Amino acid sequence: MNRTAVDAEGSWFEPDEMAQLRRRLPIPYVDIVPVRTDVDGSIVAVGLLLRASGAGRIVRAIVSGRVLIHESIREAITRHVEKDLGTMALPRVPVSPVPFTVAEYFPTPGQSPFTDARQHAISLAYIVPVDGECAPQEDALELTWFEVDELLGSEVLDEMEGGHDVIVRRALAHAGVV
Amino acid sequence: MNRTAVDAEGSWFEPDEMAQLRRRLPIPYVDIVPVRTDVDGSIVAVGLLLRASGAGRIVRAIVSGRVLIHESIREAITRHVEKDLGTMALPRVPVSPVPFTVAEYFPTPGQSPFTDARQHAISLAYIVPVDGECAPQEDALELTWFEVDELLGSEVLDEMEGGHDVIVRRALAHAGVV
Amino acid sequence: MNRTAVDAEGSWFEPDEMAQLRRRLPIPYVDIVPVRTDVDGSIVAVGLLLRASGAGRIVRAIVSGRVLIHESIREAITRHVEKDLGTMALPRVPVSPVPFTVAEYFPTPGQSPFTDARQHAISLAYIVPVDGECAPQEDALELTWFEVDELLGSEVLDEMEGGHDVIVRRALAHAGVV
Amino acid sequence: MNRTAVDAEGSWFEPDEMAQLRRRLPIPYVDIVPVRTDVDGSIVAVGLLLRASGAGRIVRAIVSGRVLIHESIREAITRHVEKDLGTMALPRVPVSPVPFTVAEYFPTPGQSPFTDARQHAISLAYIVPVDGECAPQEDALELTWFEVDELLGSEVLDEMEGGHDVIVRRALAHAGVV
Repeated sequence: MNRTAVDAEGSWFEPDEMAQLRRRLPIPYVDIVPVRTDVDGSIVAVGLLLRASGAGRIVRAIVSGRVLIHESIREAITRHVEKDLGTMALPRVPVSPVPFTVAEYFPTPGQSPFTDARQHAISLAYIVPVDGECAPQEDALELTWFEVDELLGSEVLDEMEGGHDVIVRRALAHAGVV
Repeated sequence: MNRTAVDAEGSWFEPDEMAQLRRRLPIPYVDIVPVRTDVDGSIVAVGLLLRASGAGRIVRAIVSGRVLIHESIREAITRHVEKDLGTMALPRVPVSPVPFTVAEYFPTPGQSPFTDARQHAISLAYIVPVDGECAPQEDALELTWFEVDELLGSEVLDEMEGGHDVIVRRALAHAGVV
Repeated sequence: MNRTAVDAEGSWFEPDEMAQLRRRLPIPYVDIVPVRTDVDGSIVAVGLLLRASGAGRIVRAIVSGRVLIHESIREAITRHVEKDLGTMALPRVPVSPVPFTVAEYFPTPGQSPFTDARQHAISLAYIVPVDGECAPQEDALELTWFEVDELLGSEVLDEMEGGHDVIVRRALAHAGVV
Repeated sequence: MNRTAVDAEGSWFEPDEMAQLRRRLPIPYVDIVPVRTDVDGSIVAVGLLLRASGAGRIVRAIVSGRVLIHESIREAITRHVEKDLGTMALPRVPVSPVPFTVAEYFPTPGQSPFTDARQHAISLAYIVPVDGECAPQEDALELTWFEVDELLGSEVLDEMEGGHDVIVRRALAHAGVV
């Protein structure tokens, strides 16, 4: 999950208020796996952000963030892609609202493959091909495209936090890549 | 959406507090289409509840309700089926967390096919075969099994509120029935 | 199903041979619903072909055809889109091989919603956004884009044959449009 | 793929005829991952067969086989489960015909993760919970239930042939287990 961006959104409330809401309700999220695709639709590369985690470490992450009140899922996907990849990314938002997986993040590790110390989040995960130029925005330090073989042969996935690696693996399984 | 049942859950908070949360965040829900299946897995009948709507009318409805904080989606499905169909329903909770559709309920009609005057809800919809005896519980007055042809040939679907008919139709489309 | 185009493919065999194969095995197919999408990914319009049916009638149809030996599903989708919509259609082949529905066509009506007098076909159905210019090819007389409301309010779907209307409706249900 | 069972089916034709068909057309298949589920629907164990491969080796395999002419996919699933797991297995055939993945088997390795020396097969893959007693039938020597952790921690998946391990992994990913 995108810690700082969420905090930024949280500041639409008083900070204390967002913290209080998070103790009350599961928070709806979207997780987005940005990909480059071949002309036949198959995934060629996966885009991962480099950003500061809440614990002060630099980690690889997918695009992720909250769905706001009165915002549609399509709007949330578009907003978070734009926020993290810039306005020239040209994302292809999926035609169907059906996610390829649902990630349930819990504060306590072990309840699921996904953890988020701040909250219980229910995240709908989508694969989003992006055709345009991506430029990391705000708190993202860098965006790197990893070719699929490179990604699977390296330790990049193992270094992701909160279960983001599981989401990338499920995305590749759904896409018929692994 | 299941108005009274949600109110019941809402009473875990002070009523004012739940109303306030609903102005702040989209509320995660599950919608469940209970079905009877043939030995080959095909849908034979759809179970619809008869219950009092918030406006004092008696309406047909599917099983629906909130996901609580720290509750998994599987737990929420089981709890809502038990709440509405009784403890002997023997639901077959799906093996996958991927919903057949996602229903976005907005307070303002027209933003999507789904409306809920009380809140912005994001609902993951599942088809749940039930094998056991169903007995309507709490505020549900009755449960009726409609064979698919009967359901499609009648006005039952047209009389459902908030877009529940759309969810039933999408369930039948996903199951290859219509 | 695209009668003449399949016959054309069948001519890779002696015509008698294709007829014989069709009495022996189910034939793998792809059905493709071409769509125009909004910037947020939602379906704006559905593209339907006008072509001569085998019975000499002019009918609306989706893009459809056989998967050839040693051909991947992605290649089959691309080939049939190109064959029916031209080389400038710029189709967005889905990232996942998972179809939104599977249509089982039988020669005998009533065994499923799908019929094909020539064969038992098992068709994987995909929604394919096309961004480019479409020009009907070969035996297709015309391609018409129908806006969703227009399509649902007209009799166009009811006039489709073999169950193609059911595939379009399921595509719209899967995409969250109906 | 289930070599001997397919051969058995093939004997509905003259053996030469089946071999000839396989050089002409992709062959429609179903692949079935049998699972034991918890009361909340989550996968507890995966059932793998032990059988003689065509090369004379003993290998672990999932349930797999051809869809016959005029046979529905539901019938094919039921028939193959019964053939391999016995008549008391009580399979829960999925309510939807949508597979969790599509496996394209090619005779030449490298074209996809799936290979089958005999043929180009297009296989629709389903997760099928079985509640009853399973007894290996015909050419299957044994059925073993592997708990998920046990399966992932062992070398069992790596020893599967033709890409069956990939299908099991995709099934577990789709089910939210890995």
